[in-house]
Amino acid sequence: MGDPGLPKLQFAPFSSALDVGFWHELTQKKLNEYRLDEAPKDIKGYYYNGDSAGLPARLTLEFSAFDMSTPTPARCCPAVGTLYNTNTLEAFKTADKKLLLEQAANEIWESIKSGSALENPVLLNKFLLLTFADLKKYHFYYWFCYPALCLPESIPLIQRPVGLDQRFSPKQIQALERAYDDLCQTEGVTALPYFLIKYDDNMVLVSLLKHYNDFFQDQRTKITVGVYDPCNLAQYPGWPLRNFLVLTAHRWRGSFQSVEVLCFRDRTVQGARGTAHSIVFEVRLPEMAFSPDCPKAVGWEKNQKGGMGPRMVNLSECMDPKRLAESSVDLNLKLMCWRLVPTLDLDKVVSVKCLLLGAGTLGCNVARTLMGWGVRHVTFVDNAKISYSNPVRQPLYEFEDCLGGGKPKALAAADRLQKIFPGVNARGFNMSIPMPGHPVNFSSVTLEQAHRDVEQLEQLIESHDVIFLLMDTRESRWLPAVIAASKRKLVINAALGFDTFVVMRHGLKKPKQQGAGDLCPSHSVASADLLGSSLFANIPGYKLGCYFCNDVVAPGDSTRDRTLDQQCTVSRPGLAMIAGALAVELMVSVLQHPEGGYAIASSSDDRMNEPPTSLGLVPHQIRGFLSRFDNVLPVSLAFDKCTACSSKVLDQYEREGFNFLAKVFNSSHSFLEDLTGLTLLHQETQAAEIWDMSDDETV
Amino acid sequence: MGDPGLPKLQFAPFSSALDVGFWHELTQKKLNEYRLDEAPKDIKGYYYNGDSAGLPARLTLEFSAFDMSTPTPARCCPAVGTLYNTNTLEAFKTADKKLLLEQAANEIWESIKSGSALENPVLLNKFLLLTFADLKKYHFYYWFCYPALCLPESIPLIQRPVGLDQRFSPKQIQALERAYDDLCQTEGVTALPYFLIKYDDNMVLVSLLKHYNDFFQDQRTKITVGVYDPCNLAQYPGWPLRNFLVLTAHRWRGSFQSVEVLCFRDRTVQGARGTAHSIVFEVRLPEMAFSPDCPKAVGWEKNQKGGMGPRMVNLSECMDPKRLAESSVDLNLKLMCWRLVPTLDLDKVVSVKCLLLGAGTLGCNVARTLMGWGVRHVTFVDNAKISYSNPVRQPLYEFEDCLGGGKPKALAAADRLQKIFPGVNARGFNMSIPMPGHPVNFSSVTLEQAHRDVEQLEQLIESHDVIFLLMDTRESRWLPAVIAASKRKLVINAALGFDTFVVMRHGLKKPKQQGAGDLCPSHSVASADLLGSSLFANIPGYKLGCYFCNDVVAPGDSTRDRTLDQQCTVSRPGLAMIAGALAVELMVSVLQHPEGGYAIASSSDDRMNEPPTSLGLVPHQIRGFLSRFDNVLPVSLAFDKCTACSSKVLDQYEREGFNFLAKVFNSSHSFLEDLTGLTLLHQETQAAEIWDMSDDETV
Repeated sequence: MGDPGLPKLQFAPFSSALDVGFWHELTQKKLNEYRLDEAPKDIKGYYYNGDSAGLPARLTLEFSAFDMSTPTPARCCPAVGTLYNTNTLEAFKTADKKLLLEQAANEIWESIKSGSALENPVLLNKFLLLTFADLKKYHFYYWFCYPALCLPESIPLIQRPVGLDQRFSPKQIQALERAYDDLCQTEGVTALPYFLIKYDDNMVLVSLLKHYNDFFQDQRTKITVGVYDPCNLAQYPGWPLRNFLVLTAHRWRGSFQSVEVLCFRDRTVQGARGTAHSIVFEVRLPEMAFSPDCPKAVGWEKNQKGGMGPRMVNLSECMDPKRLAESSVDLNLKLMCWRLVPTLDLDKVVSVKCLLLGAGTLGCNVARTLMGWGVRHVTFVDNAKISYSNPVRQPLYEFEDCLGGGKPKALAAADRLQKIFPGVNARGFNMSIPMPGHPVNFSSVTLEQAHRDVEQLEQLIESHDVIFLLMDTRESRWLPAVIAASKRKLVINAALGFDTFVVMRHGLKKPKQQGAGDLCPSHSVASADLLGSSLFANIPGYKLGCYFCNDVVAPGDSTRDRTLDQQCTVSRPGLAMIAGALAVELMVSVLQHPEGGYAIASSSDDRMNEPPTSLGLVPHQIRGFLSRFDNVLPVSLAFDKCTACSSKVLDQYEREGFNFLAKVFNSSHSFLEDLTGLTLLHQETQAAEIWDMSDDETV
Repeated sequence: MGDPGLPKLQFAPFSSALDVGFWHELTQKKLNEYRLDEAPKDIKGYYYNGDSAGLPARLTLEFSAFDMSTPTPARCCPAVGTLYNTNTLEAFKTADKKLLLEQAANEIWESIKSGSALENPVLLNKFLLLTFADLKKYHFYYWFCYPALCLPESIPLIQRPVGLDQRFSPKQIQALERAYDDLCQTEGVTALPYFLIKYDDNMVLVSLLKHYNDFFQDQRTKITVGVYDPCNLAQYPGWPLRNFLVLTAHRWRGSFQSVEVLCFRDRTVQGARGTAHSIVFEVRLPEMAFSPDCPKAVGWEKNQKGGMGPRMVNLSECMDPKRLAESSVDLNLKLMCWRLVPTLDLDKVVSVKCLLLGAGTLGCNVARTLMGWGVRHVTFVDNAKISYSNPVRQPLYEFEDCLGGGKPKALAAADRLQKIFPGVNARGFNMSIPMPGHPVNFSSVTLEQAHRDVEQLEQLIESHDVIFLLMDTRESRWLPAVIAASKRKLVINAALGFDTFVVMRHGLKKPKQQGAGDLCPSHSVASADLLGSSLFANIPGYKLGCYFCNDVVAPGDSTRDRTLDQQCTVSRPGLAMIAGALAVELMVSVLQHPEGGYAIASSSDDRMNEPPTSLGLVPHQIRGFLSRFDNVLPVSLAFDKCTACSSKVLDQYEREGFNFLAKVFNSSHSFLEDLTGLTLLHQETQAAEIWDMSDDETV
């Protein structure tokens, strides 16, 4: 029954202002916390009543929106909201927006009826945010809603809006500002969304809503209320007034017929505070139908075209490409955690520092797989240059890299990783690894060079977590195997035949601090233990063998007299990809095991058992046979006469350092074989054979 | 016993001139023919007596050196040789050069003693070539030898060398040229290495060595011999004279004390022939010790430094880089044939044309493996653009490819292949593949676009040999599966789960010309056949199932309502490398089988049996389980109600073409299910279930 003669009050709606930081944080929450959880989430925004003229009234959501305890920015007014983030675009589209709005409106209505909105007026500033985050494309779909309860009829303006300076004297304005500031300070808030006002020529008082009884006890027909108003328009209040007017009508219509509204606007221009541009008007309080039912509500934001529809923001274009690449790379990994492997500890993988010895076919494929796993720290060592046959099998090189004699592989590989993913920390060392049976000259600079190479390699192994042995000769694996065993680093070894491969983790010796006597627990494994397969169950990591444990001949110069097909690693082209991928997957599985490199080795027999990690088995070795498309998982014990990891070798290395190594480089097989006792073993074997033959003859 | 008063005759040795073409051909012979065979090989060179002054006497070996029947270049003189190509540098270095020289010298000596050198004087022009070809680096090590038998003493010059024009009148010179040319023509040779000469003021006669008796019967104390002389020096003859003088001494010392030697040099300058610069001198024939033993010999060429040692030529720098890349890529492949898989038919692999549907994680890895196998024809189809998360898992893309919204994958992938190996023929088609349940609009251009896409896809499948299905949805595989089945193309399908994969070859229907009734032999396979594993032995390729044969639901829109982890193929990063590599290795194994796609499928049980190809098994499917590092090889039969490869579908497609396809795209599941009889099957199954329940209740 509004008065047709009076103009009706109209309101300027909020514009949602969703910061890039908000979307970034939503991305993180979705990936790391919400995952597939679609339950509503509490979020928090704010609005400001001090914007320059011309700006729309904005409700801002920043990266901090997800932390309800985060302080509201100074002089801003908080708004609390509910986030509905769907898992699919389809769910986003089909969400029941009417129902969501009704639910929110009802909560507001209940807070009005119960009086809790008087106690905590922020309850009137409720908003909804419906989102779908397409994290593959960085497209964010959203629909914002600020529910406003509707009065049964429109609200007649008794007095049109005028500037505060037309109603208040400068002194009154000053008094208002002081009163407002004091109340904020007393309450410990950044802003008062709604407040009560009393004034006369000499003073202005403000009060909290909840004190209305005391505050308004001497009022007759009219009260004055203040609203923190984000709107800039001279003729219209902003959206927050709406629910407050409903509260006012519901609460005080019985006592007062009209209400004077101060839309409090509080701007600082060139250091001077100004609230004089606030607006004041008077409305006749509508006849509220005192039905307990919630009034109908409106509030879904229009889209950019002015229609009812969602908005979309494409952040793939405005984010820093390199940062975008980083978060995109993380995405696929984090997706694994959502549904498939919730217990996956990605940090253990992503943070691991990998040293790749060999940047050839295996090295390139291992590096590619490490990149896929998000490993950020990869270092290559190689002394070869890229030749024309390499790029088709070594997936970090191209034809251009072969020109002019070829780039050094280690450096080119590191460069390529940066080109693939700028966020990676990749380095290359173009250096040789000294080898047993490849003498280093005592008379020339070569000895010094070998010394430097050994020191460099020792430093590199020390500063990495996992050492990959990916060379193409047996003897080049010896030195890093010894150093890594001594430094207790996890070693992953891969080697190719024509259509067979072995991928293995070296046994990881027990930590040194457990006492010298316990340095290498595998000592106690007599060779007799190697007999009988039943002994190969439940072998812990520290008892496992290394690449050299199965050999009874020390490594030597294997390249010297080989034909071309022996020099090239001639293998079926798919083999290196498979072995390289499995080497990394084995590392990841080991890292996921709570005992890491000390984990008990899984064997083929364990395939039917409960796996020890969320990713499955942690074998000692994977031996693959491409012609049969088959893998087996052998387990073997450390050998007490091993030329690389036995205590005799490690002790000498740790005592004598380079002097010991130089002896190995310059000597024939027999030096290591004498040291480890292999020579004696050979003699005994021979003696046994001779005995057998005589024995036969005497029969 | 030489006359100390007379100067001694000295000889200018040959310089070996080994053409780039020779080394290229040696490379080919080594790779394709000799392989590990180190047995001596006959080769053939030539020398020329018409070079400009200042050039050394050269013995030239070209690409034609390996073909003994190849004609000698005009006016050149042939030389026959023996190639000793070693497999290793070590064997090259340790070859017994003294023995090789002695053997060759002895052959020459025997040919002199037996008189066969008179019949065929080329036997005196024997050379040796010891080589080692380092085909990884294109370094060629060689040592050339032109064995010269040594007389027991040096040869005294009775008359110092003078120009022919100082001995012969112009008329005599002309007569000599004519006589020489006539004899060459009569004999049908390009040059006469050695010949006999008689002359007086009015005439010059020449004759073959074997006619010496008749020719020299009127001579007294001196004879004149001619030698085709590659040397340019005015005072010295070239090397070929040496063995001829030994023959002369051995053969004629008894009759004549001295011999006049014409070193025949035959130059064409500015169109005018000239032999006047030939030299003539007279030597006293040495006293040959008529021992039957071979005289000692010399002849190993000095190296560039003037010492006794081998030479090395590095062709990696002077060959065309792209050609070098091509031959280098072939090298690794051909190496496989040498020792490991002599029966490997590389041509079948290298020449295959591969169509890769999908240029994502699987597509990139499949392409990489195809490159490794030397496949030269690769075509990509994809409609996606490269996003930031791609490069770390899709090894044909880099960060730069993601900028500005991302390059189209299919085009970028083809570009990358060219960058890796310029010899590849790679193309990309940025297009969509229409899918069942993804309606194409009848009112807009979309229907026409779908029609064009279908036609394009049909043409692409027609023009390729192997079709790889590497997409990330089930329904996008349907159309190419149908078209490829209809066109009888080998289909290799790969699909990833989180840590599982399937790689399979589709059953290859029998050729159409076998009669319509036999079009799809799998019709007769009733579903009852699917029971019982014993039926899965010895299933030929034409009875094998396709990707859709195991499904009882037609493909539809599977992307519409999926969460992010379902949309992304979330998989362990190593998985795509393994599956991609296996997809190619499966194709290669199938191609090696004499029956190709019709080959009987190998199963896990066949792992212990004799493999059907030189590369091993040819399974139907490889299902991999990364958590167990395990693969199994299931075999399944074609399903007569298959929504892709059953005769009902293929018949309709072949009759109605796009009209049929459009119905599938625009319809729900039920269209294909009705067509194939799946609907009926569902109803029967349901009926059976109801029956079972009632049955239970009545009990």
